[in-house]
Amino acid sequence: MTERGFPAKEFEDRVARAQARMAVSGLQALLLTTEPEIRYYTGFLTRFWESPTRPWFVVLPAQGMPIAVIPSIGAHLMRQTWITDIRTWVAPDYIDDGVGLLAETLCEVTDEDAWIGIASHLESHVGMPLASFEHLGEQLGTRAVVGDRAITRTLRLVKSEREIEKIRRAIQIAERAFARAPEIAGIGVPLAQVFRSFQGLCLEEGADWVPYLAGAAEVGGYGDVISPADDTPLAQSDILMLDTGLVWDGYFCDFDRNFALGAPSDQIRAAHARLVEAVHVAFEAAKPGALISDLFEAMTAVVGGQGDVGRMGHGLGMQLTEWPSIIAADDTPLVPGMVLTLEPSIPTGPGKLMVHEENIVIRDGGAEFLTQPAPAELPIL
Amino acid sequence: MTERGFPAKEFEDRVARAQARMAVSGLQALLLTTEPEIRYYTGFLTRFWESPTRPWFVVLPAQGMPIAVIPSIGAHLMRQTWITDIRTWVAPDYIDDGVGLLAETLCEVTDEDAWIGIASHLESHVGMPLASFEHLGEQLGTRAVVGDRAITRTLRLVKSEREIEKIRRAIQIAERAFARAPEIAGIGVPLAQVFRSFQGLCLEEGADWVPYLAGAAEVGGYGDVISPADDTPLAQSDILMLDTGLVWDGYFCDFDRNFALGAPSDQIRAAHARLVEAVHVAFEAAKPGALISDLFEAMTAVVGGQGDVGRMGHGLGMQLTEWPSIIAADDTPLVPGMVLTLEPSIPTGPGKLMVHEENIVIRDGGAEFLTQPAPAELPIL
Repeated sequence: MTERGFPAKEFEDRVARAQARMAVSGLQALLLTTEPEIRYYTGFLTRFWESPTRPWFVVLPAQGMPIAVIPSIGAHLMRQTWITDIRTWVAPDYIDDGVGLLAETLCEVTDEDAWIGIASHLESHVGMPLASFEHLGEQLGTRAVVGDRAITRTLRLVKSEREIEKIRRAIQIAERAFARAPEIAGIGVPLAQVFRSFQGLCLEEGADWVPYLAGAAEVGGYGDVISPADDTPLAQSDILMLDTGLVWDGYFCDFDRNFALGAPSDQIRAAHARLVEAVHVAFEAAKPGALISDLFEAMTAVVGGQGDVGRMGHGLGMQLTEWPSIIAADDTPLVPGMVLTLEPSIPTGPGKLMVHEENIVIRDGGAEFLTQPAPAELPIL
Repeated sequence: MTERGFPAKEFEDRVARAQARMAVSGLQALLLTTEPEIRYYTGFLTRFWESPTRPWFVVLPAQGMPIAVIPSIGAHLMRQTWITDIRTWVAPDYIDDGVGLLAETLCEVTDEDAWIGIASHLESHVGMPLASFEHLGEQLGTRAVVGDRAITRTLRLVKSEREIEKIRRAIQIAERAFARAPEIAGIGVPLAQVFRSFQGLCLEEGADWVPYLAGAAEVGGYGDVISPADDTPLAQSDILMLDTGLVWDGYFCDFDRNFALGAPSDQIRAAHARLVEAVHVAFEAAKPGALISDLFEAMTAVVGGQGDVGRMGHGLGMQLTEWPSIIAADDTPLVPGMVLTLEPSIPTGPGKLMVHEENIVIRDGGAEFLTQPAPAELPIL
């Protein structure tokens, strides 16, 4: 049975790898301001990020352990992690919501002419108010806050075996829920009820929580892949798609399954078979040394372009979607330990499409499916 | 039965109020980059924000309707809202992920010397990568991106009756789930199982999804109020606290309930009664014209200071927690339509506390409970 959490060694390794890259880049500290960055180096896991009130900071110095600079409400939970240097203020503070304490900490661990790295690239944001960020810059004086050279993003791209096992467990939970879809979905059941029940199945099968569920039920394909459900009842000839990102111990799965309400048309059966074929072609291509763009080209050859979805899969782990994106422009080489979703889409008519998604991990000899890949034949509910 | 969505009139009113404030502040446009801001003016509701890959933008000009500048994956769903001017790019784009299209749109609707407002204050962040934000500034030339004078935050502070009814429905769903707590919690049940089952109850009772659940089960109070659950079984004399923020049609409830496993000690019973008393004292004080700080002082008089939690309640609506915070420094006057949580905490021993939380709405004559307030007597499971 997979255990919760990580041994301190896991975090020590992450910190050592980051610090090695910081040294090469001339960064004397990393300033971490968002949930996945902070959790990656500390193990601090809470759903409290749902509240936007208080900012949270971690400073990773050039040597030594990360320093938490956090609201006092989080001190007890942070003390359960491997972090020992925990500095707190009583937040919210309308005058100085942690900026003074953060600046003091950064000044303590860096020289006056230091570069301090912060995530500035695609898929990132600065996790504090813009006015606070500007005040921080003033208080740092001659120190410069610069891009973090994507150090954290690059490290997170390759998962440890412990991370892969957590993702695998999340996937297995979702697979058991998908296997029970016939219990909760059928003609006449409102889609919103299907969504509620499916999330219930995910929880029954062991999910800690279900941060993401999207899908659709329409005839001849669906209009988009990101909509919430409405109360329209499932009807004969609908294609039902459910795409879930559930969490176990802070790690996500992200895959979907399609179901037909009654025997599907030949066109829809063929579209589903093409999607499955595209996944398998990309799977075969997903060997160390191949590029992300090779996976894109492999799938494109089967299903055509990426359409409005804009890509054909992505990284997966601590977030529902992570770097990189499977697009023509991404020339990241595959290395063992990368966890990816393969997610081709195919147009099925004017304004209609179908999507299909599986999860894989790159191994020395080639890819391994983490999901049990769906058969080409569209299942009928 | 509460209906999903809003009539266009609701959004027209929000836009008109924002534009009136923009005119006074000399802002020619608002740039909206985060989920609640974008949803507030457009009605765009999706769980797809769980993916950090693609940035989303809405431009609110000085006159006329909001303009959506969004990834093509969202175009179909945005077309279901009242928004008609929808501009898309195929995201992710590693070279220009929407910044060029956004700059073009902003330049189209503003003069060369315009001020463009962006949320910069507490509880906000800029919803795009720092490097993109810097590139945007360059492309805007002589136009200046400045703070938005908290226009959107201020408008969101006062809820419409339709918004209040959605919050009320979320609350009623949670109340039905709390009433069923004895079905799922008892001595010997692991806390993680209680969390899974409680989320299942919330879904069974009608939640669209359950973005937030925190809590604890410990003897003599709990160590913090933001922890996820572990597999420790509930034991005799534990105090179980569950604090949920579930969503119905995009609106949250946020309140907790405490339960005793077996007859509680006199000290714990008294602590719970004090928390309930503090809520009622604040409820009586919550009349239009009173200040947020008056609520803080009222609760403090009963339970002492705010402790590590840092405040005694907050706004509630489209987010689990919203502006303002119930702290001594907040002198916001109460006006009808504000929805607040009253959330006093009390120390129960070294490193231990209890919290209690109810939801209210300010009305002309005084406050109205949206939750059915808990009795002073701690319920025994």
